[in-house]
Amino acid sequence: MAEIETSSSAAVEVVEGGITAPLGFRSASLHSGIKASGALDLALLAADESVPAAALFTTNLAKAAPVLVSRQHLDGTGARARAIVVNSGCANACTGENGLRDAREMARTAAEALGCAAEEILVASTGVIGVALPIASVTRGIRTAVSSLARDQGADAARAIMTTDPFPKEHAVAVHTAAGRFIVGGMAKGSGMIEPAMATMLGFLTTDAVIPPAWLQRALVESATDTFNAITVDGECSTNDSLFALASGSSGVAIDEASYPALVDGLRAVSRSLALGIVRGGEGATKLIAVTVRDAASEADARRVARTIANSPLVKTAVHGADPNWGRIVAAAGRAGVVFDIDRATVHIGGVLLFENGLPHDDAAPQAAEHLKRRTIEIDVSLGSTGGSAATIWTCDLSAEYVRINGEYRT
Amino acid sequence: MAEIETSSSAAVEVVEGGITAPLGFRSASLHSGIKASGALDLALLAADESVPAAALFTTNLAKAAPVLVSRQHLDGTGARARAIVVNSGCANACTGENGLRDAREMARTAAEALGCAAEEILVASTGVIGVALPIASVTRGIRTAVSSLARDQGADAARAIMTTDPFPKEHAVAVHTAAGRFIVGGMAKGSGMIEPAMATMLGFLTTDAVIPPAWLQRALVESATDTFNAITVDGECSTNDSLFALASGSSGVAIDEASYPALVDGLRAVSRSLALGIVRGGEGATKLIAVTVRDAASEADARRVARTIANSPLVKTAVHGADPNWGRIVAAAGRAGVVFDIDRATVHIGGVLLFENGLPHDDAAPQAAEHLKRRTIEIDVSLGSTGGSAATIWTCDLSAEYVRINGEYRT
Repeated sequence: MAEIETSSSAAVEVVEGGITAPLGFRSASLHSGIKASGALDLALLAADESVPAAALFTTNLAKAAPVLVSRQHLDGTGARARAIVVNSGCANACTGENGLRDAREMARTAAEALGCAAEEILVASTGVIGVALPIASVTRGIRTAVSSLARDQGADAARAIMTTDPFPKEHAVAVHTAAGRFIVGGMAKGSGMIEPAMATMLGFLTTDAVIPPAWLQRALVESATDTFNAITVDGECSTNDSLFALASGSSGVAIDEASYPALVDGLRAVSRSLALGIVRGGEGATKLIAVTVRDAASEADARRVARTIANSPLVKTAVHGADPNWGRIVAAAGRAGVVFDIDRATVHIGGVLLFENGLPHDDAAPQAAEHLKRRTIEIDVSLGSTGGSAATIWTCDLSAEYVRINGEYRT
Repeated sequence: MAEIETSSSAAVEVVEGGITAPLGFRSASLHSGIKASGALDLALLAADESVPAAALFTTNLAKAAPVLVSRQHLDGTGARARAIVVNSGCANACTGENGLRDAREMARTAAEALGCAAEEILVASTGVIGVALPIASVTRGIRTAVSSLARDQGADAARAIMTTDPFPKEHAVAVHTAAGRFIVGGMAKGSGMIEPAMATMLGFLTTDAVIPPAWLQRALVESATDTFNAITVDGECSTNDSLFALASGSSGVAIDEASYPALVDGLRAVSRSLALGIVRGGEGATKLIAVTVRDAASEADARRVARTIANSPLVKTAVHGADPNWGRIVAAAGRAGVVFDIDRATVHIGGVLLFENGLPHDDAAPQAAEHLKRRTIEIDVSLGSTGGSAATIWTCDLSAEYVRINGEYRT
């Protein structure tokens, strides 16, 4: 990730761990009987008491039962939560009334064991759509999880939420402010069906800063814009996308107007690491591609063009094949629905100029082809407008392995 | 194609041949030195005299030189043309002023040899973007082509316009009306970068009906809506998409208000055959998928949802793997940006009900999996609205072969 700059200030420092790196959080993970492989499929993240909570959910019309239940619970508590129960291997989506009943049962079971109200429990699921949860064994698993909560189990939780993810994704930073030091941690899962429209598949952030729920929600939205909401694996927005943040307050460092930007920086640093991890671990991915569009009339224009290029199967296969095929980049930009002057546009791959003044620079193609053999690829498009707006979207290449995984995933 | 119904009336009958099936047209094809393989790469389609012409061009902002030149020529002649010169192997796109000069040179050369004005020649190119035409050998080829025009060379022309197409696409029908019988013929090339926004890659239609240019243009637009404009291979709208129609009038059958619908039927029948051929011959395609969305509030809504499903890589890979994964279909419909009630929606694959009342019918999955082993797949989604509008989009499956072709196409 050394190649990708973050916007974090120097006051943000990477530390060990993930969701339990901030004070005031414990986690537990186990196999609850969902995955036939016997792998970890249940994670519980619990604060020591009820704490401010924030969340972003999928914009897909087909919202999974845990999304509907979590949203309802956050509304009911005024955005506070005690714990989040997560299962992998089953999305509990398109499961009708029974699915809602199961999601509520997960919350009720955790609440009983923790000694809090059911509304203080948030739930999240990921996996196959349209399959019912084995709820009896899941609730047994939840009770066991509550009895084995610990501060040092964050890494296992990041494993327990995986489906086709090739590696777990967790990250934590310490944020130094005038008021003191606090920690932001997080974990996420991704892989396929990834183009978050408000949040990503499943992301969980924790902090031990002291912050009211409304500020936490605002900071979550701000930090997601150019992290979780700026990635795409396959242009598919899932039924289950959820991003949660819990703030334990255990550090005693209260966020005020002066330190709020530092909190956003901390959330952004953790979110960016997790989001780029999702792209690097995209189904069949072998390369991380940063598509930056600059000199656009507006940031929305820049984002739209970058997104169209990032979702272009022809661009993604060309990168996979290390082919500096800038023509496909120009063609994708041209169909994005954004007005610009092709003759003033430029295309760089890995800093190598390949297209300018409406003409190729094909002498530079071998140099660009060398860049494309790396693991992190930079595509830079200038739209030549005086507007000067820019945006970056991260994606991965499209490989035959993506087709194999998704042609064989369920059957 | 027996599985796909056309809207053509019984007065339309399939006949032998393609673009030269209607009276008044001749064609020639040869290798002009563009393709390194030595395969056919130049086709000339000529009417016996200047005739009414109509065209639809790509909506991509990055329009190729031949698109710009052809549009200019049609404007200049009041929509009349004598001939169309087409080359494959080089798109003459993103080639700046030199590209425009080359496209005009192709037209000028053909005009001189045919003895007409340069403006009466339309040009089309397909192949790699950003590469200059070997214009000297192309113009030599054009002169040779003019001297070898014949009525029985249509099949070779359909071959000469191919790039990665696995087979040539030509079709012709006889249309019987009260005023008499006329012929509509056509050829097309497709493969990758296919999601026409106004027309498809390259399509050429001919008829020997007598019809003024304005009516021909209107009929072309009408017939393209649910044929060329209703297909997608990879969601990529090309820089070169062009659909041309020429009407020689040689049958002596004049199109009036009574016979106009029959002409549209004839154009639609030929266009549908060619458009479905493009999808069947899509890069790496092994299956044709018809995605029909019905019970939508408007036709635009139906088309938008159908297009989102048809472009979903997760749906396309599931079909490739014969996995009746209706959950991915519901998820794609849910993110299409169209409002509907998930609990009133249904999903059928091959006529088998898999999702209804917000719940799976997984007992029927094996039956749907059988249907998915066929070469033509039917996906049917009802949005449950009382609006009752419907639309069909045709696409193909996504295979590892698509990735191979596009990762290796140029380098």
